Amino acid sequence: MSNPHPEVPQPPHEELRIRRSAKRARYDRETIEAIVDAVLIAHVGTVRDGKPVVIPMLCRRDGDWLLLHGSPAAGTVVRGRDQEVCVTLTVLDGLVLARSAFHHSLNYRSVVVLGRAEVVHDEGERRRALEALMERLVPGRGATLRPTTDAEVRQTAVLRVSLAKASAKLRSGPPADDEPDYDLPIWAGVLPVTTRIGEPEPDPRLPESTAVPEHVTRMAGKTA
Amino acid sequence: MSNPHPEVPQPPHEELRIRRSAKRARYDRETIEAIVDAVLIAHVGTVRDGKPVVIPMLCRRDGDWLLLHGSPAAGTVVRGRDQEVCVTLTVLDGLVLARSAFHHSLNYRSVVVLGRAEVVHDEGERRRALEALMERLVPGRGATLRPTTDAEVRQTAVLRVSLAKASAKLRSGPPADDEPDYDLPIWAGVLPVTTRIGEPEPDPRLPESTAVPEHVTRMAGKTA
Repeated sequence: MSNPHPEVPQPPHEELRIRRSAKRARYDRETIEAIVDAVLIAHVGTVRDGKPVVIPMLCRRDGDWLLLHGSPAAGTVVRGRDQEVCVTLTVLDGLVLARSAFHHSLNYRSVVVLGRAEVVHDEGERRRALEALMERLVPGRGATLRPTTDAEVRQTAVLRVSLAKASAKLRSGPPADDEPDYDLPIWAGVLPVTTRIGEPEPDPRLPESTAVPEHVTRMAGKTA
Repeated sequence: MSNPHPEVPQPPHEELRIRRSAKRARYDRETIEAIVDAVLIAHVGTVRDGKPVVIPMLCRRDGDWLLLHGSPAAGTVVRGRDQEVCVTLTVLDGLVLARSAFHHSLNYRSVVVLGRAEVVHDEGERRRALEALMERLVPGRGATLRPTTDAEVRQTAVLRVSLAKASAKLRSGPPADDEPDYDLPIWAGVLPVTTRIGEPEPDPRLPESTAVPEHVTRMAGKTA
């Protein structure tokens, strides 16, 4: 059967289909990966006693997987290893100011990942995952640190969720007003929103002479 | 029975208790409201066929309620009116760079709201809620717009969730390293993260002579 809406992207799994504003949906890997790579805090949904629980967790992409960092005793980690989770990652890009309240919107990029969360059991693999999370946080910093002990690796949990079942939704650009409203003398446009890293704030317990290393100074001005 | 951990904030409902890093928990209304007021996009968890679904939605606080804006046909809106939801709001404030990878952390403020989502059925009440959401997005803009029609009010859904069952969790300040690690010659501190609104970008279809109104120009530099 031919696609009845050729302008609407089609999902690889029916479970992933975005029904509202379907033109804003994207299912291609490149779009999904770019959004995941732009987000530091994922919102991880699990089910507890039949009710939803959503918790923010540090994340990074590792190839076809999404890594999530947590405590081995955290509720989301304990529950996540036994059930399907939903991980949602969102970037706010702007406030869209239209000529009517109704057409006001947000420019955003978001990804929803559905899948069973796996615990990274193997300690070597978990150590590598933790190094990858460190590299995501501040590239180049890992090698400058006091080495991670085996006990520390055991005290940290890493969950991973396959990106095989992921969808993206995004909006960009100017407002989409009702055609007659474009004649009204009302300012319309976009207020862009950016999340930026500022200048490093030294730990008060650091000796005053300690220089800020290049891997830290080059973070200033970057998106988090 | 006396509180065995006097330094750990105690929740008003056991369901709200934060067990991991319990010292970071806050249950007082002032802290919760300040965090909710700082967040524009909430992550709303519902349960679909026994599995979690997490969707970003525009939100604002209205007294003791959290308002959520959506389409009447959106899955989260349809499901939310029949079940308990979990709404999580997160602000990232900084990357915490410690002397060991293990003590790296994030400075953040987050709120988790548990409760049954109610649909705002009354059209007058919904109109007022939409005006409140507009006022949250860009204060002072509502009065400058083409008036909202009754049909537009009917095409928009507003959910509200009581803030009665809400908890906050936050971290701030410098890293907390292992005591011996403070002697190591490793830079440590915080990279602050801020989300800011930039300069307005006019709609390309706007006549060139259109001045940017003061309610728009004063948004630049604010947190979103």
